[in-house]
Amino acid sequence: MSFPPKTPARFAPARTVGLIGFGAFGRLIAHHLAPHARLRAYDPVVAADAFGPDAEGVDLATAAACPFVILATPVPTLRTVARAIAPHLRPGALVADVGSVKVVPAAILRAELPAQVDILATHPLFGPQSARDGIAGLTVAVCPVRGRRSLRAAAFLRRVLGLAVVVTTPEAHDREMAAVQGLTHLIAKVLVRMEPLPGRAGGRRMTTRSFERIMEAVDMVRHDAPEVFSAIERQNPFAPEVRRRFFALAAELEAELDAADAPGAPRLALVR
Amino acid sequence: MSFPPKTPARFAPARTVGLIGFGAFGRLIAHHLAPHARLRAYDPVVAADAFGPDAEGVDLATAAACPFVILATPVPTLRTVARAIAPHLRPGALVADVGSVKVVPAAILRAELPAQVDILATHPLFGPQSARDGIAGLTVAVCPVRGRRSLRAAAFLRRVLGLAVVVTTPEAHDREMAAVQGLTHLIAKVLVRMEPLPGRAGGRRMTTRSFERIMEAVDMVRHDAPEVFSAIERQNPFAPEVRRRFFALAAELEAELDAADAPGAPRLALVR
Repeated sequence: MSFPPKTPARFAPARTVGLIGFGAFGRLIAHHLAPHARLRAYDPVVAADAFGPDAEGVDLATAAACPFVILATPVPTLRTVARAIAPHLRPGALVADVGSVKVVPAAILRAELPAQVDILATHPLFGPQSARDGIAGLTVAVCPVRGRRSLRAAAFLRRVLGLAVVVTTPEAHDREMAAVQGLTHLIAKVLVRMEPLPGRAGGRRMTTRSFERIMEAVDMVRHDAPEVFSAIERQNPFAPEVRRRFFALAAELEAELDAADAPGAPRLALVR
Repeated sequence: MSFPPKTPARFAPARTVGLIGFGAFGRLIAHHLAPHARLRAYDPVVAADAFGPDAEGVDLATAAACPFVILATPVPTLRTVARAIAPHLRPGALVADVGSVKVVPAAILRAELPAQVDILATHPLFGPQSARDGIAGLTVAVCPVRGRRSLRAAAFLRRVLGLAVVVTTPEAHDREMAAVQGLTHLIAKVLVRMEPLPGRAGGRRMTTRSFERIMEAVDMVRHDAPEVFSAIERQNPFAPEVRRRFFALAAELEAELDAADAPGAPRLALVR
């Protein structure tokens, strides 16, 4: 998708965006918002002059005083961050987070941010890896938590950035992601721990398309920050149930295969 | 890859191929060999007039008397089939199997077939699904077990059918496939048993590229015959060890995540 370079007029008054958190995902946000907005970024471990060309390094209070504030910090830090920015937020501002889960963050932001601030909980379903070739056409889930500005921000994501915007609720999001992300990261984690995998050694001469697909999935998430795995598996209220089913069915299959291998079952000897 | 329609002269005297087994993979073989050879097929559950345009239905003895004989029957039937064809094989014939494992089939064929018969154990690393758009460029592993004709047959697979031919030993093949196929089919089996997966219901609006890759892998193997799963998991001497590692590491991860969820560990409550 492509759009005319001009930003629709109604976004014009609110073009300054405060970005809290300048990790891998914060930098991705800065890269894609820089053509459309003035970015003021704060990160406790990034020096003010080290934000590069896309964002101006500022202090927390300055970033929090922008009309749009994006929180790109790990989910476990969200309550602390929300409390820290709350005194500096302007009435009528919009605060958005970008965490991989939505039930817990939405509840934290609703509880911690002043009533005059609008809230949009978002989950961009991509990361630096999958966004390597651009973000147009990629999916972002958005949960309007409070206020009318949140839907305008969703329109911006769709019309200006070209994202596929799925409007949902935190609960519906987390239920679905418990399978989509929970299973992907679980399987990837186990396979990474099994490495080196014989099929990948020696240039993978002998491989199957299906195994290649699985290893492509592993490669997409293997460099994710540990906080991403932790958020997906531990801060999604529906993840434990999906995980339990996966492990229970795996154990069931293991028992079936063991039974088939047991004495009395048809056997084929190892012959050299 | 493309090749001139004429078959190299040295294949000319041996253009008749006996095909034992006319299941999904037998039909795939017939489809791709029909332009290059006269096919005589036998399958105990297919009537002689039901082989379609690619192959002529014959009895077992006639199929076994061809200069090339391909065994496309499930691995557990291989010893029975080898014993049944042995009396009908002509000296100098080449017998090939196409099973997903190679240690056990190679040993069976070496033990059961007369010494004057050459043997090529093969594993086409594709199936009717992955070969939907043709077989050129797909991989076949070949293990020359006995005789010189086997290398000529490998040359035919590469030059005439356009396959990527990997020459290996039954043991090296099975070691590598214990991971490549063993893990793919194990993971796919567990995920199929978990269905319907939330991320796949409702048109999968919210999904990630990595989850899509995994589900593509599942879709590639979900319709495989049960014998394929059984061969991969139970008739590969190295599969149990790979499986044990997968299940052990999964259990280890489960314990870690459970410990993190335990009382005393940092918790995030489910909030609506």
